[in-house]
Amino acid sequence: MKKLLVLQSDFGLSDGAVAAMIGVAHEVDIDLKIYDLTHDIEPYNLWDASYRLFQTVEYWPEGTVFISVVDPGVGSNRKSVVAKTKYGHYIVTPDNGSLTHLKRYVGIEQIREIEEDYHRRADSHYSHTFHGRDIFAYTGAKLASGKIKFEDVGKELSVENIVELDLGPVIKSKDSIKGNIDILDVRFGSLWTNITREDFVSMGFKYGDIIEVLIKNNSIIAYNNRISYGKSFADVYVSEPIIYVNSLLRMAVAINQGNFAKAYNIGTGINWTIEFKKIP
Amino acid sequence: MKKLLVLQSDFGLSDGAVAAMIGVAHEVDIDLKIYDLTHDIEPYNLWDASYRLFQTVEYWPEGTVFISVVDPGVGSNRKSVVAKTKYGHYIVTPDNGSLTHLKRYVGIEQIREIEEDYHRRADSHYSHTFHGRDIFAYTGAKLASGKIKFEDVGKELSVENIVELDLGPVIKSKDSIKGNIDILDVRFGSLWTNITREDFVSMGFKYGDIIEVLIKNNSIIAYNNRISYGKSFADVYVSEPIIYVNSLLRMAVAINQGNFAKAYNIGTGINWTIEFKKIP
Amino acid sequence: MKKLLVLQSDFGLSDGAVAAMIGVAHEVDIDLKIYDLTHDIEPYNLWDASYRLFQTVEYWPEGTVFISVVDPGVGSNRKSVVAKTKYGHYIVTPDNGSLTHLKRYVGIEQIREIEEDYHRRADSHYSHTFHGRDIFAYTGAKLASGKIKFEDVGKELSVENIVELDLGPVIKSKDSIKGNIDILDVRFGSLWTNITREDFVSMGFKYGDIIEVLIKNNSIIAYNNRISYGKSFADVYVSEPIIYVNSLLRMAVAINQGNFAKAYNIGTGINWTIEFKKIP
Repeated sequence: MKKLLVLQSDFGLSDGAVAAMIGVAHEVDIDLKIYDLTHDIEPYNLWDASYRLFQTVEYWPEGTVFISVVDPGVGSNRKSVVAKTKYGHYIVTPDNGSLTHLKRYVGIEQIREIEEDYHRRADSHYSHTFHGRDIFAYTGAKLASGKIKFEDVGKELSVENIVELDLGPVIKSKDSIKGNIDILDVRFGSLWTNITREDFVSMGFKYGDIIEVLIKNNSIIAYNNRISYGKSFADVYVSEPIIYVNSLLRMAVAINQGNFAKAYNIGTGINWTIEFKKIP
Repeated sequence: MKKLLVLQSDFGLSDGAVAAMIGVAHEVDIDLKIYDLTHDIEPYNLWDASYRLFQTVEYWPEGTVFISVVDPGVGSNRKSVVAKTKYGHYIVTPDNGSLTHLKRYVGIEQIREIEEDYHRRADSHYSHTFHGRDIFAYTGAKLASGKIKFEDVGKELSVENIVELDLGPVIKSKDSIKGNIDILDVRFGSLWTNITREDFVSMGFKYGDIIEVLIKNNSIIAYNNRISYGKSFADVYVSEPIIYVNSLLRMAVAINQGNFAKAYNIGTGINWTIEFKKIP
Repeated sequence: MKKLLVLQSDFGLSDGAVAAMIGVAHEVDIDLKIYDLTHDIEPYNLWDASYRLFQTVEYWPEGTVFISVVDPGVGSNRKSVVAKTKYGHYIVTPDNGSLTHLKRYVGIEQIREIEEDYHRRADSHYSHTFHGRDIFAYTGAKLASGKIKFEDVGKELSVENIVELDLGPVIKSKDSIKGNIDILDVRFGSLWTNITREDFVSMGFKYGDIIEVLIKNNSIIAYNNRISYGKSFADVYVSEPIIYVNSLLRMAVAINQGNFAKAYNIGTGINWTIEFKKIP
């Protein structure tokens, strides 16, 4: 029996919230192995919560249970759910957009609503603001430990109706490919785009090519210059920019041992577009 | 046999101090399960250390051993102790105030002084500044692993004489209830008071009531306005303040998806009072 | 069988990089016990990476496998290696300086180059920028779990040729001993020098002595005053400076409950020297 439980939240690690969740999970089963994905999601940032799940879930063993609690609507009528991905990972989360990237890029096989009256920590009925501890950790631990099956979580919902955030389009023309800056490789300031390696390579680009890069925040140009496409940072000088394939096999832009995002004040989201253009 | 060990300190996670403690604990017993409560206690902040123990200990299985090292007096004659709570949790800590909230709100059943000459990591006799590694982690691991019993720690001390920090009073009158702002829900800027739900409800307040809130730093007014009492954040608009019952069943004040403490420069401690008044 | 795996990097914990490494390690063996040393090494700071390994490795059980990924040259011809220390710990790391302190102060018994074509996560052939996940976590997990032996990692290299950073000298004269400020005890701003307790004591210094301390950044004087040598912080008043033996049995300077480094703008590295002088 796999017994891995992985926690994500926007709670930070400076107070006792995450430790209380781990304690509750171990009350359910002392033998769980519990890890953190990250708890440093910016408060209420559902986009990042969704992306970080996409970035990590597939590297864990089948059957691993993830709990993601970025929950601005705690106490509202937003649903508490467990999703099962195409590859057999479980995500326990409010249904508020945190499943967006997994649904689009990996595939959600089934989703069930947590019957909150039943799957709730004892003595938690006066507490309405910490479902992470009282419902999600408790239910996730029961699922990871095998004390309940996925079918026992609650009634099945339609995968079709999962709450989804807007994802930006990838647009190919004869001479360019254009997408979004989805997120940063935070510590290093590298830009991670939504353009896959396959789409990029299909344009005919090869290692060593010099490519024109145009980055815009809505209609405002934030960066426009030529950058070479390399296999890894070592292909360019220290301090030189580079286009490369990131660890999720999507196109990225960095400065070797520098910080591209800080250098040019680049942000993320669907209003931040990036275009790679062939040089005639 | 339960074998859970939970670590708290003001060491941060940027250097190797916590990792050295975990290593020492695993030298004692490879089978321990070791977790962090938090290591982000502000240096020397005994109040927060005490509060974070109170916030988390009760959610862990009986028998769990906690180590809390906020230790401005390391090397002084302050005592190294192990406390056993009313519900069977153990706290390994300097006796310097970190047991304040547990003693008052949960109950300490027994306390013993660590015989430091005996319960000390081998080869640590020239090191006098890292009891967290050399004494607390070592002793906590032996206790959690069952290699020693609580009785073997050292001689019993009087629970009466535990070092305690001042806790602010809760004062009820006919039309108002007044207490302190004990601590923040850090990431979200919510104010957590020392006023219990029971005391608050005994005033006659009900969900939906509009209540006058007066916050003072000593005699200086920091906030004075009317706020509604809701079940959860979803009961008010985004950006609207709310009075609610927090996850420890005490009264709290927040801005839904905002940061109350930052909005009004609110601090914590016994000089920060908060009063809830009936509106005539 | 020991199955401890300890991770260090400059990735931070704000995104999913570390969680992906842990997932990959558990794909190799569900029974590993995985901990963090720190992930808060400043980006590309090989000195700190080397020091934090030195600070912690010896406190872990023999056979523990450490992975250290501070890797500015990822994708270059820098070698991926596994080092075995004199006391039987393993370090999986790029050979770029991160083994400096362990080699000098502990001893490296043997070093082997990772055969990357063989020891590489399946399906990672288009990813060239995350060896932490694709090679180091994968190989470290196989070694920690016993699925491969140290000898299976790859061919032996010469310990002589390990890449080393410059370490500053310790210079003794009749009346003074001079060394470097290697690193800070980050949270508390204490200065940790490269002068061992043995060398210091051999000068004739005793607890209670008042000693002249001269700190320079190259030729610029940053601090010059008299400080007493104590056993622990409690030997001086709160807010008073103290010379003491740190937890690695090296000489250190702190302000009791203050922050010496911030108080006097002290930095670290071989250009920051510190001299302890006898007062005539």
